[in-house]
Amino acid sequence: MSLDNIKVLGFDVFGTVVDWRTGIARESEAFFKRNAIEVDPYVFADTWRSLYQPAMEPCRRGTRQFTRLDTLHREMLITALTSHGINQSKISKLEIDELAFAWRKLDPWPDAVDGLLRLKKKYVLVPISNGNIALILEMAKRTGIPWDAILGSEVTQAYKPEPLAYLGTADILGIEPNELCLVAAHNYDLLAAQQCGLGTAFVYRKTEHGENQKIDLAPEGDWDLVADSFLDLAEILGC
Amino acid sequence: MSLDNIKVLGFDVFGTVVDWRTGIARESEAFFKRNAIEVDPYVFADTWRSLYQPAMEPCRRGTRQFTRLDTLHREMLITALTSHGINQSKISKLEIDELAFAWRKLDPWPDAVDGLLRLKKKYVLVPISNGNIALILEMAKRTGIPWDAILGSEVTQAYKPEPLAYLGTADILGIEPNELCLVAAHNYDLLAAQQCGLGTAFVYRKTEHGENQKIDLAPEGDWDLVADSFLDLAEILGC
Repeated sequence: MSLDNIKVLGFDVFGTVVDWRTGIARESEAFFKRNAIEVDPYVFADTWRSLYQPAMEPCRRGTRQFTRLDTLHREMLITALTSHGINQSKISKLEIDELAFAWRKLDPWPDAVDGLLRLKKKYVLVPISNGNIALILEMAKRTGIPWDAILGSEVTQAYKPEPLAYLGTADILGIEPNELCLVAAHNYDLLAAQQCGLGTAFVYRKTEHGENQKIDLAPEGDWDLVADSFLDLAEILGC
Repeated sequence: MSLDNIKVLGFDVFGTVVDWRTGIARESEAFFKRNAIEVDPYVFADTWRSLYQPAMEPCRRGTRQFTRLDTLHREMLITALTSHGINQSKISKLEIDELAFAWRKLDPWPDAVDGLLRLKKKYVLVPISNGNIALILEMAKRTGIPWDAILGSEVTQAYKPEPLAYLGTADILGIEPNELCLVAAHNYDLLAAQQCGLGTAFVYRKTEHGENQKIDLAPEGDWDLVADSFLDLAEILGC
């Protein structure tokens, strides 16, 4: 489809805008040092993230009321610590709470903020993320990510790739699905958005999962646009 | 209460951030000219706005599902046109739709954007408005109002002065009510926020209702702070 209609760019955040693996490993490493725990922080980051999709499933299936990602992240953290054999009895609740908020402290990929600032002149920029509002807001305030509004799962009360996560966003914005383009580094996300009638832009993030990344190394669908970075995306869109 | 705890400033928008009367009169006047209608646009603006509180009442009482302000504004417009004896049979639906969106085209008071830019360096800035997301977003994008996130009635699904409009905003932000301060030119709004435990800042807007304004000419409660403008507010808060 043509991207001439596009008014709003909606961004996946974890992996597309920010480098979650490096940030989670950094925050986990500091936590492990403080508590004299010996675990590879990158392995731990991968464990924690591996619980992400399963944690949202009950909400998607309707067997659990919609629950904010901050809350799910904390539950996943307990599971991850336990699965790494880490005794939590001597760790304060406050320390666990703080580590659970590590997802609020992730840094953008080096091109992200500069690219978004260019794109913002021509488009409305919003996250279409599974992250809750407070999480995405704190991340943006820390790093200068220039959202026009913070939308996403907490506003639509639906976790991607549920259709409502995409269609509800267009509805709230008062625009047609084909006036909204999802920007994401993940093929499954773009496929769901395309099936809802949104525009689709794939951005390469070849080290999201580290040097040996095996998924999302290339576009796997007929996406409307493929970009090497957010600066490249801005260039392609004439910003 | 002390404002030392405050992390987030939540702003009333219509009347506090933007001058709705001048903007609505301007948009209405252009519409009247195009359709050869003779009505004082300021009188019309006052009529339209007078329907605002009654229009939200069924949603507050629960006899009507929460309905976005854009939709209520359009219904109020039809009532206002009818009450001014304006025959709508020869006016296109598109023209009515466009005038209904006049509320998206309001200009900030002269001090507002500069004040917000200063306040933004120290605080998170969000609207706590009855305006829906798309309305507040389009207004901000047109005029440079630098929100960190767009909250308000559509996110909490509650119209001010319902307690949920204030407490739901704090909950979404993950903060305590006393870490959130309402900034408003309206005593009724500040009273409701104070009863929910929020901080309160009154800003004078003595011509919101025109030269002969009769209400909200002065603070009528024990508000935590009183400011002449957003620049004064920034000064008082050390921004």
